[in-house]
Amino acid sequence: MTEDELIATIGARVGATDAVVGIGDDAAVLEDGLVVSVDAVIEGTHFKREWLSLAEIGYRGTVTALSDLAAMGANARAVLSSLACPDGREGEAVMEGVAMAASEFGAALVGGNVARSDAIALHTTVIGRTAADPWLRGGARVGDTIYVTGPLGSAALGWRLLERGLAEEPFVSRWRRPRPRFDLLSLLAPSACIDISDGLLSELWHICDASGTGARFELAAVPLDAGFAEAAARIGASADDLVLSGGDDYELLFTARASETGVPIGTIQEGNAVSVVERDGSERVRREGHRHF
Amino acid sequence: MTEDELIATIGARVGATDAVVGIGDDAAVLEDGLVVSVDAVIEGTHFKREWLSLAEIGYRGTVTALSDLAAMGANARAVLSSLACPDGREGEAVMEGVAMAASEFGAALVGGNVARSDAIALHTTVIGRTAADPWLRGGARVGDTIYVTGPLGSAALGWRLLERGLAEEPFVSRWRRPRPRFDLLSLLAPSACIDISDGLLSELWHICDASGTGARFELAAVPLDAGFAEAAARIGASADDLVLSGGDDYELLFTARASETGVPIGTIQEGNAVSVVERDGSERVRREGHRHF
Repeated sequence: MTEDELIATIGARVGATDAVVGIGDDAAVLEDGLVVSVDAVIEGTHFKREWLSLAEIGYRGTVTALSDLAAMGANARAVLSSLACPDGREGEAVMEGVAMAASEFGAALVGGNVARSDAIALHTTVIGRTAADPWLRGGARVGDTIYVTGPLGSAALGWRLLERGLAEEPFVSRWRRPRPRFDLLSLLAPSACIDISDGLLSELWHICDASGTGARFELAAVPLDAGFAEAAARIGASADDLVLSGGDDYELLFTARASETGVPIGTIQEGNAVSVVERDGSERVRREGHRHF
Repeated sequence: MTEDELIATIGARVGATDAVVGIGDDAAVLEDGLVVSVDAVIEGTHFKREWLSLAEIGYRGTVTALSDLAAMGANARAVLSSLACPDGREGEAVMEGVAMAASEFGAALVGGNVARSDAIALHTTVIGRTAADPWLRGGARVGDTIYVTGPLGSAALGWRLLERGLAEEPFVSRWRRPRPRFDLLSLLAPSACIDISDGLLSELWHICDASGTGARFELAAVPLDAGFAEAAARIGASADDLVLSGGDDYELLFTARASETGVPIGTIQEGNAVSVVERDGSERVRREGHRHF
């Protein structure tokens, strides 16, 4: 069972009486306009100790959660961090990174909980507020252009480099210190938006499923960091797979009739499938994504 | 380092620019009147698998988090659950208990996250709203009476019975299915309030520290479940230690000039210490509580 399936099961059973938008979007919108979301990073599942300092664990866990607010068009207001950790001194170091991230993106750290466990796990709830209507997944319309806000694949490559004990930049930093795109909020007016945590394909399917549309995009149009393909090749990784399914980018994927900000990669179209124009010009429907279990 | 010390360290560094009340009370009050809090239950730290069904893990984890809202005088509005779990099917069963608890106390389950980990951990953020000013820890005044809202010690005894493979009631149910006291919100008008999660002594010290007062109470005045002392004696546990420091009761401890609801156990007085009148009539300052590390 994937996380999406589990969330769908839960959402179907529970409903969302107090929420304008319930489980299933990047964040839930409470009736009073607040946007809330929760995310977690867990040692052994999302990172290994040797890949991040304790403060970086806290920082990364917090900014990846905050990214869900940016995806909704919301500014960050508050962070609540629930940390499980083997050791109190280590917990304090993790929380320093949490505080750094909250402060950097204008959120107050208003709640904290610390409990003992064998592995480090940081569960972060973020609360934000939208200036206008929140940006949802389900607003894409046929004819909209599909945009991404930055290079993809590099963070996933960074993870694979760290797995091999390599620390090649900028890839490792892309993974260690992703940047939630709050800087773009005032520049975008998307019809649909999502942040790319699980991978481009997976996120575009989410937009299409929620919008009742299909999509078609060109792999060659997706922006890449300089040296990305070469660095991937050196470790025998498929650059295209990293771009399509690697995840951890935390750039925004959005649709709009037209946008001056963002790199256009394709078009929303009739149908219910995501078609990729491969580098050789062939076109096929691809469904892949991150599996949590 | 205790959780209190860690939270104090974090709170001192971070401040709480957007919060009326920041880290350190049961919950934080956002400037728009919403009350938010986060809590966690972790396999191996807070429970063993054989003590609870999967649904009970979700239920207990959710109601213990919700209790922090009741302690602030807030009604439950929304729950966000971040679950770490070895297996997706098990995760679904845990989330059924979450949904039951949220529904029972009038909260919408508006956010969920599921990630893989070796042990089950449920991190729960709760959002509530107060009808009037929130009930804080720091409002106790000299001369106020100290009240508790129900029998103490039974949940901690239930845990110790489960540790021994016993399932004697009502003690085991007191631990498995604590009841956040939302039912009392309209009946109370406390000067200070806290829920008893870590133990009576620890929570009363919190009230005194935050209020700049001392307190004195009679151990013999604390209400107990029928058969409690005998059941504790049968397993060689100190009934008084369970009452004073056992925790997991989730009853409210509050102060008020006078209250028709609640059992009076003592008085707020000048000073900065908590004095216990023991069963033999002797009186001494006692400082004990739950240690998280």
